[in-house]
Amino acid sequence: MTDENQRGHDPVPTILLTCGDPTGIGPEIVCRAWRETTAHECGRLRVVADAAMLARVLATRPGLPAIVPQPIPAASRERSTPDRLLVIEPAAEAPRLQVGLQSELQMESATVTAAGGRAAAAAVETACGLVRRGLAQAIVTGPLHKEALHAAGYDVPGHTELLARACGLADDAVSMMLWLPAEAAGRAAGSGTGLGVVHATLHESLRTAVARLSTTGIADAGRRLASLLSALLGRRPRIAVAALNPHGGEGGLFGDEESRLVAPAVRQLQAAGIEAQGPLPADTLFLRASRGEFDGVVALYHDQGHIPIKLLGMHRAVNITLGLPLVRTSVAHGTAFDIVGTGAADPTSMIAAIDAAVRLVAAGWPAAATGMLTASSGPVS
Amino acid sequence: MTDENQRGHDPVPTILLTCGDPTGIGPEIVCRAWRETTAHECGRLRVVADAAMLARVLATRPGLPAIVPQPIPAASRERSTPDRLLVIEPAAEAPRLQVGLQSELQMESATVTAAGGRAAAAAVETACGLVRRGLAQAIVTGPLHKEALHAAGYDVPGHTELLARACGLADDAVSMMLWLPAEAAGRAAGSGTGLGVVHATLHESLRTAVARLSTTGIADAGRRLASLLSALLGRRPRIAVAALNPHGGEGGLFGDEESRLVAPAVRQLQAAGIEAQGPLPADTLFLRASRGEFDGVVALYHDQGHIPIKLLGMHRAVNITLGLPLVRTSVAHGTAFDIVGTGAADPTSMIAAIDAAVRLVAAGWPAAATGMLTASSGPVS
Repeated sequence: MTDENQRGHDPVPTILLTCGDPTGIGPEIVCRAWRETTAHECGRLRVVADAAMLARVLATRPGLPAIVPQPIPAASRERSTPDRLLVIEPAAEAPRLQVGLQSELQMESATVTAAGGRAAAAAVETACGLVRRGLAQAIVTGPLHKEALHAAGYDVPGHTELLARACGLADDAVSMMLWLPAEAAGRAAGSGTGLGVVHATLHESLRTAVARLSTTGIADAGRRLASLLSALLGRRPRIAVAALNPHGGEGGLFGDEESRLVAPAVRQLQAAGIEAQGPLPADTLFLRASRGEFDGVVALYHDQGHIPIKLLGMHRAVNITLGLPLVRTSVAHGTAFDIVGTGAADPTSMIAAIDAAVRLVAAGWPAAATGMLTASSGPVS
Repeated sequence: MTDENQRGHDPVPTILLTCGDPTGIGPEIVCRAWRETTAHECGRLRVVADAAMLARVLATRPGLPAIVPQPIPAASRERSTPDRLLVIEPAAEAPRLQVGLQSELQMESATVTAAGGRAAAAAVETACGLVRRGLAQAIVTGPLHKEALHAAGYDVPGHTELLARACGLADDAVSMMLWLPAEAAGRAAGSGTGLGVVHATLHESLRTAVARLSTTGIADAGRRLASLLSALLGRRPRIAVAALNPHGGEGGLFGDEESRLVAPAVRQLQAAGIEAQGPLPADTLFLRASRGEFDGVVALYHDQGHIPIKLLGMHRAVNITLGLPLVRTSVAHGTAFDIVGTGAADPTSMIAAIDAAVRLVAAGWPAAATGMLTASSGPVS
């Protein structure tokens, strides 16, 4: 158990990468990111995947680096380098999965399959188990396919909920921040600068989102955003809260949610010492944020945050989970079945996700922020 | 009256430029666009403004071309060139305005003033009068300041309504399309390609917009968009209609407006021979549109259209008015008081607005499209 209790003593964190659905671009971007990331210098990277699957991908899909997957024990303290792809196999960690995975090695590319869903889920569950045992500090996940997950019998809305359940949490205990590193947002690259977006409402109809919007919900989102950005940037972040209505309501002419719900939430954030502004008209706000005027934005509904983030560079964005008892970052794009095996898959988002994970572990997240989080946003565990 | 009835006989249209509020960047971008546009080759350009005001701007603000304003009679058929700034003076056209304007020549820059509002309104009213008398075919307007307009006693929400009233129309008879030329949308420049956005709802609270959304309103917006894009592009445009809810409603899980309201509108457009698709999830739709997959998008509410257009290049976007009995295009940006007199004002939007006006006049707009428009969208002239 010595190895399993070294967190806090060993300054070099162990970061686990998963490929998501192996029939998608996940294995390709993981292999390319492995070669290109500079994170080996400050973290031990491992891919949680079937080594034979990775070997097959490396051998059959073009444009991938010449590296050989090398299975290692989960407890190994070996440092990683760009030259050797260190792999922890789910089958070795959970032998009950072994028979199924072995028989599925020849699964097709770019197809929704139960085998792909099972492999993705097995990797995530294995990775969560390793973090809970103290053998790793963060998980960086590749894109899975929701339908494949369903075909494999996992009745979850998506990746984040899969992680929540693997950690023994309820689905609604977790939320996410979209993180767009500065380079991706069209700004000059800078150490750890970028744009983070947390949503006050997310997966519900716009009508319901408008009806359910509350000062508490907006302030919660702002606190989560500020807390995560503090850890990521290592300084006090500048937060903007979007308005709901055109022109920010034009002084009450186009709706009263700005004065009734949003402004009180901004005052709550300010009273808590958070550098927050708002409500600000959403159309100019994102333009200003993209120019570096803000570090983070509280979006009031799904598309208000997703339209600008996707336009600014979705294939480079990172998804960071809030509410888990571990660091989890992810690519924000999908399995991209249309480009699997073409060599076109871009590892930028995966590299940025690894970078964000390293930063968050170094900042002591989520423990360092737990106080701030638990004050009002429910279970963090 | 010979000159006044030559439309249709004279292939060279007369295009009137207005500066908007003279205390803003309007006069600067008009003077720079005058020098830089290639529209002199196919149109007679005139600036409708006080020549002394223009002379003062040219003499006192840096970065402007060395051209001299030269007043000409409204009926002059003189061709314009980049070297001589041909000016039609509102005071000469409407002597009642003269005393007021003369005394206001020394108005300050970058300030909300009644004088600025009066000058902007006088130019627009004069230009409308000239078009109605057959002396010009299009108006291209610079940015005015709503508060200055109010201070001058004009109780209108904005520029477009000012034009509607000058043409004897009700405010709600007119609407607008935002037009982002391809260069501005980050795509390779092409003759007349770009992205147009028409809104199904606009200046109202999001709650009201969601409640008022109707199949008729969406289909109307789609028809207006298709009609205007046909004239602008000279071919059948590819239209996309945005969804209202996250992920396009995710099959009814996040709202039913997609199947209940949007899909029937798309079918109506298709039945009318319009190449329309939708409902499409808004976040990926604008990314696809920005890559050239669509020529136009029907946005269902203000920010759904404005967030992406502003991110893609607001200072280059053009505002085109639908429903007026004349061609009117405008810059889509504001008076930009913060950069007045700094030389930083960018004439790109004004140049693009002039270009769009020339194209629309050449296509016979709005008459050519009247049949399509009047079918269901109310008064056009």
